[in-house]
Amino acid sequence: MSFYSRLKRYAIGPSLPTSAASQERLSIPTALAVLSSDALSSVAYATEEILHVLVLAGSGVLGLSLPIALGIIGLLVVVTLSYRQTIRAYPSGGGAYTVARENLGLYPGLLAAAALTIDYILTVTVSIAAGIAALTSAVPSLYPFTVELCLLAIVFIALANLRGLRESGRLFVVPTYVFIVSIFVLILVGLVQGNSPTTIAPNMPVKESLSVFLILRAFAAGCTAMTGVEAISNGVLAFHPPEWKNARSTLLIMSGLLGSMFLGITYLANVRQIVPVDGQTVVSQLGRQIFGNGFFYYFLQIATLLILVLAANTSYADFPRLASLLARDRFLPRQLMLQGDRLVFSNGILLLSLLAAVLIVVFRGNVNAIIPLYAVGVFTSFTLSQAGMVRHWFRTKERGWRTSAVINGLGAIVTTIVFTIIVSTKFVEGAWLVTILIPLVVWIFLIIRRHYHRMSERLQITELNHDRYPLRPQIDTISHPAVLLVGGVHRGTIEALDYTRSIADEIVAVHIDVNNTDRSSIQQQWESVEPDIPLIILDSPYRSIVQPLSEFVHNFEIAHPHTFCTIVIPVFVTRHWWENLLHNQTIWFLKSALRENRSRIITTVEYYL
Amino acid sequence: MSFYSRLKRYAIGPSLPTSAASQERLSIPTALAVLSSDALSSVAYATEEILHVLVLAGSGVLGLSLPIALGIIGLLVVVTLSYRQTIRAYPSGGGAYTVARENLGLYPGLLAAAALTIDYILTVTVSIAAGIAALTSAVPSLYPFTVELCLLAIVFIALANLRGLRESGRLFVVPTYVFIVSIFVLILVGLVQGNSPTTIAPNMPVKESLSVFLILRAFAAGCTAMTGVEAISNGVLAFHPPEWKNARSTLLIMSGLLGSMFLGITYLANVRQIVPVDGQTVVSQLGRQIFGNGFFYYFLQIATLLILVLAANTSYADFPRLASLLARDRFLPRQLMLQGDRLVFSNGILLLSLLAAVLIVVFRGNVNAIIPLYAVGVFTSFTLSQAGMVRHWFRTKERGWRTSAVINGLGAIVTTIVFTIIVSTKFVEGAWLVTILIPLVVWIFLIIRRHYHRMSERLQITELNHDRYPLRPQIDTISHPAVLLVGGVHRGTIEALDYTRSIADEIVAVHIDVNNTDRSSIQQQWESVEPDIPLIILDSPYRSIVQPLSEFVHNFEIAHPHTFCTIVIPVFVTRHWWENLLHNQTIWFLKSALRENRSRIITTVEYYL
Repeated sequence: MSFYSRLKRYAIGPSLPTSAASQERLSIPTALAVLSSDALSSVAYATEEILHVLVLAGSGVLGLSLPIALGIIGLLVVVTLSYRQTIRAYPSGGGAYTVARENLGLYPGLLAAAALTIDYILTVTVSIAAGIAALTSAVPSLYPFTVELCLLAIVFIALANLRGLRESGRLFVVPTYVFIVSIFVLILVGLVQGNSPTTIAPNMPVKESLSVFLILRAFAAGCTAMTGVEAISNGVLAFHPPEWKNARSTLLIMSGLLGSMFLGITYLANVRQIVPVDGQTVVSQLGRQIFGNGFFYYFLQIATLLILVLAANTSYADFPRLASLLARDRFLPRQLMLQGDRLVFSNGILLLSLLAAVLIVVFRGNVNAIIPLYAVGVFTSFTLSQAGMVRHWFRTKERGWRTSAVINGLGAIVTTIVFTIIVSTKFVEGAWLVTILIPLVVWIFLIIRRHYHRMSERLQITELNHDRYPLRPQIDTISHPAVLLVGGVHRGTIEALDYTRSIADEIVAVHIDVNNTDRSSIQQQWESVEPDIPLIILDSPYRSIVQPLSEFVHNFEIAHPHTFCTIVIPVFVTRHWWENLLHNQTIWFLKSALRENRSRIITTVEYYL
Repeated sequence: MSFYSRLKRYAIGPSLPTSAASQERLSIPTALAVLSSDALSSVAYATEEILHVLVLAGSGVLGLSLPIALGIIGLLVVVTLSYRQTIRAYPSGGGAYTVARENLGLYPGLLAAAALTIDYILTVTVSIAAGIAALTSAVPSLYPFTVELCLLAIVFIALANLRGLRESGRLFVVPTYVFIVSIFVLILVGLVQGNSPTTIAPNMPVKESLSVFLILRAFAAGCTAMTGVEAISNGVLAFHPPEWKNARSTLLIMSGLLGSMFLGITYLANVRQIVPVDGQTVVSQLGRQIFGNGFFYYFLQIATLLILVLAANTSYADFPRLASLLARDRFLPRQLMLQGDRLVFSNGILLLSLLAAVLIVVFRGNVNAIIPLYAVGVFTSFTLSQAGMVRHWFRTKERGWRTSAVINGLGAIVTTIVFTIIVSTKFVEGAWLVTILIPLVVWIFLIIRRHYHRMSERLQITELNHDRYPLRPQIDTISHPAVLLVGGVHRGTIEALDYTRSIADEIVAVHIDVNNTDRSSIQQQWESVEPDIPLIILDSPYRSIVQPLSEFVHNFEIAHPHTFCTIVIPVFVTRHWWENLLHNQTIWFLKSALRENRSRIITTVEYYL
């Protein structure tokens, strides 16, 4: 086994046969951990995002956060009910792409797919960056290594996912439940303690007057709490059978948990007069007030860190699945369809990791720079998906279709309104970038499909195909021309010629003189071992091996029409990989030059040193 | 012409034929600029390095810098006279490697070569970092981009050198002469103005008592002035004929300029009571005192910046030449021997740039961290070279050999003493690293030579070579087995089979089922177009194409001993490079797996889309 194979096996475990596939399903408690960490973790910052906008109008208006949070919870109820309809109608997985494409047509489907793709990548970036930012504010000495720590976390999650779905599920169960328990303990203890704040909140100056726009901005900021809600409906097939029923139950549990945690934190922040400050999160302020500076406070912080980092995992469960759907429909490279050694879409996992890592490096791990881009994609897909469901009910007219259509219609209208609010209030801060990126990604999808379409046209077997090289009957005599590249007269060359003799009857040996050849000596050596084959020595005034050879081959091929010419290249295979550095990598350039001249048959004869 | 070719032509100019080689020589004024910028630029920091050590014993002892500088100038005289002997004795270029190897034997030669190699890389790193540090202290807003600016400077110098020797000479003439003139104007104006300092020097506290060790440390620090002196003797062949005479004259001019500038600056620093401070160089302090804060001061600073950056160019003239010598003797990869499109050793230039860039990134462009490593290598090669010259004169006994032997003997003794001083006084600060690196590089040289030696042994044509595949007479009938890889039944496969039919009479077509093949459908399609060739469908429970195929081929080859088996792989060639991303890169993994199984003949049949 090679070093690479051993390393791979150690990192991700032994290969699983395809027949093991059906076992890799999730129970409800595990699925909740795997598919909901994104949605649940957003309670760690959603309240703060609302307060952060409201405080511009002074600390006096912070009380508005409670009605705003209630509005978002109302939105959550509508979206949850909508998605329950989707799961029922699409028991094999009803992602926004599938639903929009089937019901609204190709372009809305691709729009939804593009929006989701971008949002999955942003989820990884934001979650990891926020988690590491929490860590570095707890341990300031780690701050200079923010980018490195983010990349390390990405590698860690990628490896966990490459090991396979169920194992990664196991890995993520504990932190998710620890977080949920911590937050509920925080809320309960806070409620029991009563309403008196232990510290007096600072009085913040008024920077903007309170306006409808400001309230809408605060609402839009709070909508980050909604990211990740759609994950369960995309991942129905990951559940134990009966898949759709389990998925619906999980969605309900998740929304209940999310709503109550969000409401609890916002309520406590209100009654305890928490004001958003730099360097300490709202949840951390609540923790200090309620638990004091002891063990429970740090436990809460650590749980928050872990779930934020693991929230990225939701995307790792969903992005590769969406990518494989798109690849199946030829909108993405078909490599994304292949399941790897551990029955997961390895290429999708690697692609997601790469893109997220690039964003981390570009934004230097700074959450604030990325947050405004977030949520636009989510609400694009919410809207398209719900609108698609309305069409679906009108078309199928299943039992109870009217109720479902009303629920999904309401969902579509509400999410359209929210989408408009988000784009218009966050446009200048960064949402504009996403409104450019989504159409760009759709365009890439279409280009890729055009390529595959053209290719399959070119490859079709038709009557006319064989005009260039007519299908031969089985022939018995060799009547075949070949060119052999001679670097020097040695065993590698001689054995390559032995091979060439066994397939060709018209053989030309070619040596390129890059101005350091002793021509008469090489000619003499050649004649002493292979007197019957002519050796042609070509000049190369510009010291390139590639150019004169590809020219010669081109002319040779023109002189032999209606037949295949074989170009034989002797290649050394060294014992160790590093020994390759000691040899010219000319063959690589040679092959691409021969390709440019449309040479067709390139044979390498390996010589093992 | 491909995009890459056009880009290359634009960046480095059109290819030059080998016949243009002799024109690419340097006149004395140009050679002085190209080969001396390293040595001359060191006056920008050498005085400061001395003062920096002396000031530890308080500002009272700074006057000692003048006798120390005089000592270094004495050393310069000895080394210059020594190298004049070397140039006479080795008119085709007498680098330390050549001289030490010819006269002292293989290992001293390699030791000298390793020392020089390391020093060339350090010269690039130190010069670029010092130049950019000067720039960023003048324009502090650029400071955060130190590493990026250093890398940009390396790219700039590398491109200039890739364009060819004479053109890069032209590029560097102006800054070198501007620097020389600026420094002399500074010294002259300073001397004319008289001795009264316009500012009162700060009184520095005594941190260490004055000791012989401290004086030796100051001397060792000042020896950075000597780096680059050997460049001319290495580059004799770059001069116009008569090469050795022109080289000797240039060496004399350079040493004269270097000595007088160094002495002048040290003298002025003494009489004007300059004390080294952070954030401003000694030369900059002198400039402000003498020219005031006006145009001439900034002119001097810019000239200093430019020559520091360009000093790196000395290594670009010499490192590739040394590397090509070592490659000729098989101690370095033979690619370093090849002259590129513009008649320069392109690979050497690229390698040097890469290594220097790595050091810049590792040390984050911080000069102080690298300076202690510097000069160890230079004095190692000085010593070995002069010792070699003594042996040379004793062996050849040419006219006047006694005088030459005495001069070189003196040189050898003096440089050995200085080498000992440098290593012992700078050991803790970083010289230890170089004393590990030099033997390591020698070890790499030896490993590389062993590889080439073994290879040429394996490739030799002897009686016994043809036992495995006996040399065939010209045969006329096809008797040859082949395996064809079938991805699907389409034109690419059919044409590859057409080719296979023309060279083989025993053909097996193989398809790998990675669990997504409709087996009966592909079997049926195949039989309808190629009924006479069997199609074998292999299971791949772990969804790998590579593993079952390479196993099958291995068994097929075992079943066909004493003959060559051809493995035919149909390959799509896409119209645009990016379209390759849309196809599996399986062929790459396949080839390396086949290599692991020691399959010998791999034929790709290209199908142009």
